[in-house]
Amino acid sequence: MRTLSAFIASSTSFGHCFFHRLTLRHSHKTLASPLAPCFRRHFTPTMAAPEDSLRKALADKQSEVENQGNQVRSLKAGKAAKSEIDAAIEALNALKLQKASIEKDLQASLSSADGSVNREAFRQAVSNTLERRLFYIKSFNIYGGVAGLYDYGPPGCAVKSNVLAFWRQHFVLEENMLEVDCPCVTPEVVLKASGHVEKFTDLMVKDEKTGTCYRADHLLKDFCNDKLQKDLNITAEKAKELKHVLAMLDDFSAEELGAKIKEYGIVSPDTKNPLSDPYPFNLMFQTSIGPSGLIPGYLRPETAQGIFVNFKDLYYYNGNKLPFAAAQIGQAFRNEISPRQGLLRVREFTLAEIEHFVDPEDKSHPKFSEVAELEFLMFPRELQMSGESAKAIRLDEAVAKGIVNNQTLGYFIGRVYLFLTRLGIDNKRLRFRQHLANEMAHYAADCWDAEIESSYGWIECVGIADRSAYDLRAHSEKSGEALVAHEKFPEPREVEVLVISPVKKEIGLAFKGSQKNVVEALESMKEKEAFALKADLELKGEVDFYVCTLGKNVSIKKNMVKISKEKKKEHQRVFTPSVIEPSFGIGRIIYCLFEHSYYTRASKAGNEQLNVFAFPSIVAPIKCTVFPLVQNQKYEDIAKDISKSLTVAGISHKIDITGTSIGKRYARTDELGVPFAITVDTTSSVTIRERDSKDQIRVDVKEAASVVKEVTEGLRSWADVWATFPHHSSVSADE
Amino acid sequence: MRTLSAFIASSTSFGHCFFHRLTLRHSHKTLASPLAPCFRRHFTPTMAAPEDSLRKALADKQSEVENQGNQVRSLKAGKAAKSEIDAAIEALNALKLQKASIEKDLQASLSSADGSVNREAFRQAVSNTLERRLFYIKSFNIYGGVAGLYDYGPPGCAVKSNVLAFWRQHFVLEENMLEVDCPCVTPEVVLKASGHVEKFTDLMVKDEKTGTCYRADHLLKDFCNDKLQKDLNITAEKAKELKHVLAMLDDFSAEELGAKIKEYGIVSPDTKNPLSDPYPFNLMFQTSIGPSGLIPGYLRPETAQGIFVNFKDLYYYNGNKLPFAAAQIGQAFRNEISPRQGLLRVREFTLAEIEHFVDPEDKSHPKFSEVAELEFLMFPRELQMSGESAKAIRLDEAVAKGIVNNQTLGYFIGRVYLFLTRLGIDNKRLRFRQHLANEMAHYAADCWDAEIESSYGWIECVGIADRSAYDLRAHSEKSGEALVAHEKFPEPREVEVLVISPVKKEIGLAFKGSQKNVVEALESMKEKEAFALKADLELKGEVDFYVCTLGKNVSIKKNMVKISKEKKKEHQRVFTPSVIEPSFGIGRIIYCLFEHSYYTRASKAGNEQLNVFAFPSIVAPIKCTVFPLVQNQKYEDIAKDISKSLTVAGISHKIDITGTSIGKRYARTDELGVPFAITVDTTSSVTIRERDSKDQIRVDVKEAASVVKEVTEGLRSWADVWATFPHHSSVSADE
Repeated sequence: MRTLSAFIASSTSFGHCFFHRLTLRHSHKTLASPLAPCFRRHFTPTMAAPEDSLRKALADKQSEVENQGNQVRSLKAGKAAKSEIDAAIEALNALKLQKASIEKDLQASLSSADGSVNREAFRQAVSNTLERRLFYIKSFNIYGGVAGLYDYGPPGCAVKSNVLAFWRQHFVLEENMLEVDCPCVTPEVVLKASGHVEKFTDLMVKDEKTGTCYRADHLLKDFCNDKLQKDLNITAEKAKELKHVLAMLDDFSAEELGAKIKEYGIVSPDTKNPLSDPYPFNLMFQTSIGPSGLIPGYLRPETAQGIFVNFKDLYYYNGNKLPFAAAQIGQAFRNEISPRQGLLRVREFTLAEIEHFVDPEDKSHPKFSEVAELEFLMFPRELQMSGESAKAIRLDEAVAKGIVNNQTLGYFIGRVYLFLTRLGIDNKRLRFRQHLANEMAHYAADCWDAEIESSYGWIECVGIADRSAYDLRAHSEKSGEALVAHEKFPEPREVEVLVISPVKKEIGLAFKGSQKNVVEALESMKEKEAFALKADLELKGEVDFYVCTLGKNVSIKKNMVKISKEKKKEHQRVFTPSVIEPSFGIGRIIYCLFEHSYYTRASKAGNEQLNVFAFPSIVAPIKCTVFPLVQNQKYEDIAKDISKSLTVAGISHKIDITGTSIGKRYARTDELGVPFAITVDTTSSVTIRERDSKDQIRVDVKEAASVVKEVTEGLRSWADVWATFPHHSSVSADE
Repeated sequence: MRTLSAFIASSTSFGHCFFHRLTLRHSHKTLASPLAPCFRRHFTPTMAAPEDSLRKALADKQSEVENQGNQVRSLKAGKAAKSEIDAAIEALNALKLQKASIEKDLQASLSSADGSVNREAFRQAVSNTLERRLFYIKSFNIYGGVAGLYDYGPPGCAVKSNVLAFWRQHFVLEENMLEVDCPCVTPEVVLKASGHVEKFTDLMVKDEKTGTCYRADHLLKDFCNDKLQKDLNITAEKAKELKHVLAMLDDFSAEELGAKIKEYGIVSPDTKNPLSDPYPFNLMFQTSIGPSGLIPGYLRPETAQGIFVNFKDLYYYNGNKLPFAAAQIGQAFRNEISPRQGLLRVREFTLAEIEHFVDPEDKSHPKFSEVAELEFLMFPRELQMSGESAKAIRLDEAVAKGIVNNQTLGYFIGRVYLFLTRLGIDNKRLRFRQHLANEMAHYAADCWDAEIESSYGWIECVGIADRSAYDLRAHSEKSGEALVAHEKFPEPREVEVLVISPVKKEIGLAFKGSQKNVVEALESMKEKEAFALKADLELKGEVDFYVCTLGKNVSIKKNMVKISKEKKKEHQRVFTPSVIEPSFGIGRIIYCLFEHSYYTRASKAGNEQLNVFAFPSIVAPIKCTVFPLVQNQKYEDIAKDISKSLTVAGISHKIDITGTSIGKRYARTDELGVPFAITVDTTSSVTIRERDSKDQIRVDVKEAASVVKEVTEGLRSWADVWATFPHHSSVSADE
């Protein structure tokens, strides 16, 4: 008889093997992308018509210049009349001027399409403020730092814990998810089952003389971008080719990448030495568990595996009912070859992941109606293939038309949209991009990335994937533990089932020690195979049969196995649940939030640009500041009393009793994104200032803390407060 | 002239070296204990009078039995009269009975002193409930698990995040601490500076045949405990010796441990094979950063180093003012040799650490008065040395009498006491134990551990240490970055300073490439040394001078260095701040909380013991459950409405609409420590039940969520609510 575990195995396997090795189609891509945010910039094909015609015009003009130059030289050689030579030279100069003008236009066209100059200036301005105010710090800076490792300083750390608290409220609490907390140190067997040990790699090249390592695709990408942006003399055809290479970058095999690197003569960027062929480098940090050195382990590259291995317990905890979701927030680690892009590509980062387990035959969602009417930028694969842009689509329409595979996936896309925009992400710079067919793992039903536009381009910040039953099956097979769900039928159903009964006595006599392997191989046959074998046995009495765990054929006789179909009463359906996985790169979301919240405004005197982070209260690292207007014991005492009330109310705040001008103190806290400031300017009442409007109201000392609490926690809007309390205007507040 | 960095170096060094290697006095102990909770069980000497006298009586009786036996044998050999022989045998039997009775008494005395039977039964009961309700799960269980790694399941994870949220509120927010968030992956240089690479070790022995590793001190400890508890025939002297070994365990060197293991003939516990000599094993998980394999790194064994390396930026962020505190919550890792004690000794755990930087010349604390009157169990080293127990001492008295070194240390001891007891730790099973002189690192000014009594004995859960300037100096020296604070004088002060001016030209001529080493060695001399050298030079003109960075003497001539004292105006004092470090083992606190909160009570029918966790609301994983009394659409709708209101109010809750009896549903949630249950038994009003009293009140449907919010968030007490609303009694609620 077939066992339950055999059933699970056979439902995914395609041979006689109980534990077959899964063949993941692509290496770094397949794993990096659907398992979690792959944190890879997506290249969006763009129309390059003006660039093309300018490149052609430039090439034409260049040959005109060359022809005219030849003309001048032959006139001189033929000792033509001076007037004739002068005229030819004049014509040559005119052509050169025309060429220079086209060059200038092309340059302008390239830099406006690219926008890199403005983007980099903006990024630099944001980074300067973030670093100066310790939102983040290069880790271990006094020792020179380590690439790809950053600390959150006090305001950054507060923003992060606010984002995580809101994530818990918005997802875990709202959906009654089962939150778990698993270790970072993970034994090898778990990551072998998930495929990471074999496939979680990037392609690397080494400087053949110094041994310095580079990501092969980065070098090729830099080469292409550089050529396209700085070399005005490449032909339109060459430009097209380079753009095609950029678009295909993620699909290249090691051999293809190596061939392109050779073809373009790319060398080590630092030394100009030749480079090795590309080869895969595993991105997991390796370690060893226990003192013997015999248990290899890794730092987890994602938190999801901790949930999958606990499926059985969590399903039980949920009363053996589907659907349910488990969630985990924690550190993940990727030993990037050469981290770039600041906070966006780091070696250690916080992931927040949800695994929503659902019956594959019913992916509807009871709360879908709550998000159905949302409309936002979606970028389905059809639009990407035809070179169009993302467009606003209503979520219910997207699901109804099959653009989004199912309601549950659609529900999470909607919830992610609400989460990001409530945090302060600008919805005009947020799009949901569907994975192209060649980007998705073979087992995935559908994948969408929430991409946020930043100075680095469109950045994947959340991946939302319907991963079907892949992960649970992988761990079922590796561990031998059935990770399945049960649906009890209201009444037993009569079904025809395949019954394979190996005759153990005969098999034992024939194969001795290999008995178990042969029995398992027989039992894991599917119906078609089994009846083919039966027919063969009846015809020939004896047939060759491949046993993969032995790696060879054995000879099976008719008396060794009985194969039949029998009617059976089934009381339940046993199946591997599908999983829908929204996976959040918290650091990336925070970085994009910094960029989207940042703006500058002129100081009152007009001689300075002041920095502001327009964080919503929910995100702001500090909700409120308390300032005595001038240094004065009475005002200080009141400020301290208000500070105490704020502490009791759980409102994070800062008291600043320095004698600095009130305008400067406001400017300092605007830079930290503090939404409200209480200024003590009398002993009976104080002012409360809102950061972005710079509007001020006057409130009784006793009310100050509770008003701030209400506006901070969203119980009251600023507009409401503004309509309720007397207004206050002062020169200093506007500074 | 001496540079600023030379000043820092010289203030800790004792030779001529600029960067001298610090000699930490003991290996595993010194580092494991003062850097962070060392998580080591403390052996408290106890009086063993009854045990001693029983062991003596037993030995006496044994020799009486032997004498009488000889007597019987010689009577038989001498063919004495039967009656005489019978009388002797009768006397022998009587002696044997007396011996058996003493053995029984001794056994009883040992097990009551030890209490291990009851403790283990209690621990098993708690663990069963914790595991069954998924408070925690053995990590990677489907693959057989990994020793020392545990997951928090849904209720455990919620408890943990509640404890951390309260920690943030109680420490970070209340004290305006600067919270940071640094990576776990740490480059070697940082942990070399801190001393961990060299000294963070435990002593290990290996089974000489199988290679299995054991902690040397554990084997010796097990041997001694086993002998003491199970071998009734050891003498009182031997028992005393074994107890002395247990008390000294942490002080033994590798050689001493090895000698004891040989002396007692201890072998491998699993195979009985001989054991290797003890040798140090570094407890840090090692890894490699980046693709080259050339940058060694470790997983941090504590979070504190991330704060120390950022001191300069944090001091600046705080407006260059002392005192201030930085805090960090995060994972830490220790590759334990053979983890035991379940959740108490694990390989990955959450630490919450505070580094409070303070002027070493002023360790007063402005808020000390707020904790001064607290009185709780303290265990100063004098009481430990004299074999007494911990006793209740008022905090202000402890500081005034110098039992606690300073006010700031005292303030944090008080705050830790409040934190733990508010979480639900029983204050009768909480004591603050001072480190003995030989337990403390040489640089520490004073150390206290908050120890909580559990079924494993007294467990160190929080370490509160005044570490003086050790850490900042260590990183200053290694990095060359001055980690110092400044105190500006209101008016410049005239001071006499030592001026050492090496004559670089002469030194350069004499020592060429070694010029820098010689100059640095000269500059880092202290006053006494410098003037001794000066006197010598004036006497002899030339003297030998040891340069440690060269590892040899060089010959210094009179014209190579000028040494004098000069009057100088100083505008500020530059100094290395002291640091006071409260360090919290979050997992240990949570485990003790589980034990302290657990109790059982008989079911209504009396046929069953029901488990309850009496968590305070602040800790409870779920604050409230919502039950329709019977399965009924109207009740279900009301339950769902209440559930929505609770979600909006941010109250984590669970709705249970199964048809299970209400008593069973209460019992299930009591096991999760849910403090309140709302039962829908009419369409207009509902009952609210309190977990421990099982009292119920009747509340209008519309009020239910807000009443629960108020009692949960501590805005109202249950007593107050009980006095306000009508009471309700039902059979089922009491089930």
